[in-house]
Amino acid sequence: MEFESCFPVWDKLTAEQQGRLQKQLALRSFKKGAQVHGGRAECTGLLLVKAGQLRAYILSSEGRQITLYRLFERDVCLFSASCVLRSVQFEVTIEAEKDTELWVIPAEAYQRVMQQSAPLANYTGEVMAARFSEVMWLVEQLLWKSMDKRLAAFLLEEAAIEGTARLRITHEAIANHLGTHREVVTRLLRYFQAEGMVKGSRGAVELLDEKRLSALAADQI
Amino acid sequence: MEFESCFPVWDKLTAEQQGRLQKQLALRSFKKGAQVHGGRAECTGLLLVKAGQLRAYILSSEGRQITLYRLFERDVCLFSASCVLRSVQFEVTIEAEKDTELWVIPAEAYQRVMQQSAPLANYTGEVMAARFSEVMWLVEQLLWKSMDKRLAAFLLEEAAIEGTARLRITHEAIANHLGTHREVVTRLLRYFQAEGMVKGSRGAVELLDEKRLSALAADQI
Repeated sequence: MEFESCFPVWDKLTAEQQGRLQKQLALRSFKKGAQVHGGRAECTGLLLVKAGQLRAYILSSEGRQITLYRLFERDVCLFSASCVLRSVQFEVTIEAEKDTELWVIPAEAYQRVMQQSAPLANYTGEVMAARFSEVMWLVEQLLWKSMDKRLAAFLLEEAAIEGTARLRITHEAIANHLGTHREVVTRLLRYFQAEGMVKGSRGAVELLDEKRLSALAADQI
Repeated sequence: MEFESCFPVWDKLTAEQQGRLQKQLALRSFKKGAQVHGGRAECTGLLLVKAGQLRAYILSSEGRQITLYRLFERDVCLFSASCVLRSVQFEVTIEAEKDTELWVIPAEAYQRVMQQSAPLANYTGEVMAARFSEVMWLVEQLLWKSMDKRLAAFLLEEAAIEGTARLRITHEAIANHLGTHREVVTRLLRYFQAEGMVKGSRGAVELLDEKRLSALAADQI
């Protein structure tokens, strides 16, 4: 899989614009758990995922985390290049959630092409709108949903991403996705287990009743 | 004040693009409290505020509200034209918070120009990034700040917007900004009053100790 076939508006760029981007491209690999982007001043560049999985999250001053969204094959990460958009006033951290290969497009090269190219500028807007929608979903969850419903939704989403009902994940990691404390996750999973919805073991959670978890996540029980 | 001088990238559009937008423009007025945009299917168009103040908020299924951001003179509202951006998957409601005059640019006309014009597409991206930043600020507030600190920050922001320490606002309205219940606001304001930070009366809240409210909002007490 080559960059040209992965990058959505490639065909709408001029040969000169394509050349400018291609000259600056770098293919990089990250091991699962590695930090890909983070910190205030950094402008890593845009990332295009070739293979693997990234997680974007924010950090509180006390070190608590919450997952904003995930990036999969062919997804573009904008906020690792927030210097491109002057109006972006927040910082996200990006980590490799699986072994990941990605292309880095330096922010300056991208910005120069985007300033000339309506297709690239419009594409960038669409990417931002997609991430914005994911964050708005999170806002609604934080506002109107209790933690048990958010946990049920998270377990179902994980099972869908991983393609298995047996998730290898710690309570600590779940807490870092949901912006809560490990103790809260442990208490809720104990309750889910008592109700027969999941079965827990060391470092793993098995989903036993996805139908009931779905109903809980959807506010039906 | 004319549209041409209000709209930031006007000079970077071709005469034909300018004509296309101008032909479709409509100047409209809304009384304080009126709903400017709302509901799922609607695509009102982009709004450019000539005078007044708008509030963008979301609604829960039970009718609870939370303010996402405010729009002032010369601000552009994108999400009243979410049909322009395919990737926008959420709905905001816009109301006039003061008597407001605004230009409506029909979504279709805007979209056609944006598809050709890199300056307009980039400008649209910057507007979206600015709103995204405001929503991320809200996410951080929701996650890491307790309601007393959020209320202190809200009162200070209101005083700055209105240019007065005596706010004419009900507990119900404050609750609708913060995404909470009226009772919670009443209880917190009673506590603020006992501490000498505010003084309440019917339909009004007076800020007595802005320094202490600032310290509270900034997590210093």
